[in-house]
Amino acid sequence: MAHKKIAVIVAGSWGTALSRVLADNGHLVTLWTRNQAQADEINRERRNEKYLPGATLPEGITATTDMAVAVNGAEAVLFVAPSSAMRDVARLAAPHLHKEALVIHATKGFESDSLKRMSTVLAEELDRPEERIVVLSGPSHAEEVINRHPTTIVVASKEIACAESAQDLFMNESYFRVYTNPDLIGVETAGAIKNIIALGAGLSDGLGFGDNAKAALITRGLAEIARLGAAMGANPLTFAGLAGVGDLIVTCTSQHSRNWRAGSMLAQGLPLAEVLTKMGMVVEGVRTTKAAHILSEQHGVEMPITDQLYAVLFEGIPPEKAVGALMGRVRTHEIEEIATASQDKWFKG
Amino acid sequence: MAHKKIAVIVAGSWGTALSRVLADNGHLVTLWTRNQAQADEINRERRNEKYLPGATLPEGITATTDMAVAVNGAEAVLFVAPSSAMRDVARLAAPHLHKEALVIHATKGFESDSLKRMSTVLAEELDRPEERIVVLSGPSHAEEVINRHPTTIVVASKEIACAESAQDLFMNESYFRVYTNPDLIGVETAGAIKNIIALGAGLSDGLGFGDNAKAALITRGLAEIARLGAAMGANPLTFAGLAGVGDLIVTCTSQHSRNWRAGSMLAQGLPLAEVLTKMGMVVEGVRTTKAAHILSEQHGVEMPITDQLYAVLFEGIPPEKAVGALMGRVRTHEIEEIATASQDKWFKG
Repeated sequence: MAHKKIAVIVAGSWGTALSRVLADNGHLVTLWTRNQAQADEINRERRNEKYLPGATLPEGITATTDMAVAVNGAEAVLFVAPSSAMRDVARLAAPHLHKEALVIHATKGFESDSLKRMSTVLAEELDRPEERIVVLSGPSHAEEVINRHPTTIVVASKEIACAESAQDLFMNESYFRVYTNPDLIGVETAGAIKNIIALGAGLSDGLGFGDNAKAALITRGLAEIARLGAAMGANPLTFAGLAGVGDLIVTCTSQHSRNWRAGSMLAQGLPLAEVLTKMGMVVEGVRTTKAAHILSEQHGVEMPITDQLYAVLFEGIPPEKAVGALMGRVRTHEIEEIATASQDKWFKG
Repeated sequence: MAHKKIAVIVAGSWGTALSRVLADNGHLVTLWTRNQAQADEINRERRNEKYLPGATLPEGITATTDMAVAVNGAEAVLFVAPSSAMRDVARLAAPHLHKEALVIHATKGFESDSLKRMSTVLAEELDRPEERIVVLSGPSHAEEVINRHPTTIVVASKEIACAESAQDLFMNESYFRVYTNPDLIGVETAGAIKNIIALGAGLSDGLGFGDNAKAALITRGLAEIARLGAAMGANPLTFAGLAGVGDLIVTCTSQHSRNWRAGSMLAQGLPLAEVLTKMGMVVEGVRTTKAAHILSEQHGVEMPITDQLYAVLFEGIPPEKAVGALMGRVRTHEIEEIATASQDKWFKG
């Protein structure tokens, strides 16, 4: 395989871990960060201690604070900024981006206020069709990828050739397996909305409810995020795949997850503001709960778990009461609820 | 609600835990066991130490070794025998069973050799239509149910009125939530086959592969058991529900699971015979791997994970090599694989 110059923006834990995969595959990676001290640490010490403590980075990764240096001549650019920073970094990168460069992102969340998906934000700022943008998602703790633990992810694009180009960059035989999927919207919405359920799982665990309750919450949560995704144009089958149930499992059952940790602190009675201060990092699930609450109203989709989480986060309802409300719902038929997500064009062909 | 006489056969951990739910709901439960010492322990000490150490059983449960005492006059009979014993206990119960009694089972597995589902075995031995038999399944560690942790399960029957009768018996407002589902075949096959994936998850964890690999295995495993289920007449949506992904999550992420533990011992290099001796209890996943291997050939369904587990269990392939074979498969498109499970009558209506 020909080695390529690839820009990765920004140098958080996931951006750094994905840079390792690209470097291991022989590519020359330029990792962009706003922070000169972090760039120096990466270049001189081969470390990124704040985000991936203890890991040694391969020689194929060079860090820079100069967007022109990162993006000029890159055959592919991978955006991994927090959702709140995506528009800004895309705007910075745009003037340097070659029009044929492959654009990939691996960010989970919607833009605040506009509630736009990340590929829409990138398409607007980079002045290119959303069809040619690729999203990378799936069950993948950065802490494991940086240590080359076996990992399987999905790359999605409306133009499948773009997804296949991304697959060629990331796939390797030793630890990184990549599937393609044509459902950009599904992979993006699944990755964003699943953080709500991770928060809920942390809440359930924090209340000491046990594995049965958590598995039920994840399962019912999966059904409701698939309903919303389908209403937004996703293929509900995507929610049964790596970017859906796969990512949900890894997020809800591992204490690596920030969203799980935030939920578990809320269960201990800490107010939201204090939880966010203690975390010190972005907790995407909090913003996503607000976004999904609005989207579910816009699309007329019932989301009982999201509604209860919203009540806990933003209306001061005690967590025990929220979970009680979920358990006490009137009896229903399972298939009808799940099937709502499936009654769309994807199954009628 | 009127209190009913209900027979539960047999007094293992799950039968005893479900007896508690029924007794908590005000029913009179007669729990059948072959073992007089166990019956005495339950009746005199309110304990079932071998199967649920430390738990105190409610007064509404009476144990007996006399099948006539257990089943005569029972308005419902719940069968929870191991799959290998189901036909025998059903034959013992048959002469005493009222023809209008509701028949429910909560056993996960196929009959050896015949590969019949449990409802088929019960229909044959109890001389009643399979349509009126109910299966109870879902994410539910007995150890949590006996302590009244919140739990959500599904009851399925081809005749939905039978499932609703079972729902009325088990549902309560405080900790046990019950959904109905018309897909008997789906709920039975999902519950049986998921133990294969639990074995695989134990294997992956035992090899130290991490959460990313396990989540991918569970997700890909879910797709392949849904493919087999669909070929056997199940609604693939059932695999996205409590009896599918819900049970899979609880089984694969908890060390309560016997199948997970067996997989994890295999990863340490112990031969199968020794693992089974050490476990001292039935490991349904081992028999189910053999069953699914045969069924996948009969139905022409590709099951790469099952094939690799079969090779580890019965052909002496080292676990590392099996997982390597899964990682190294040619690149594929995700949706095509999942969609195979959905191209059946359920989505065409």
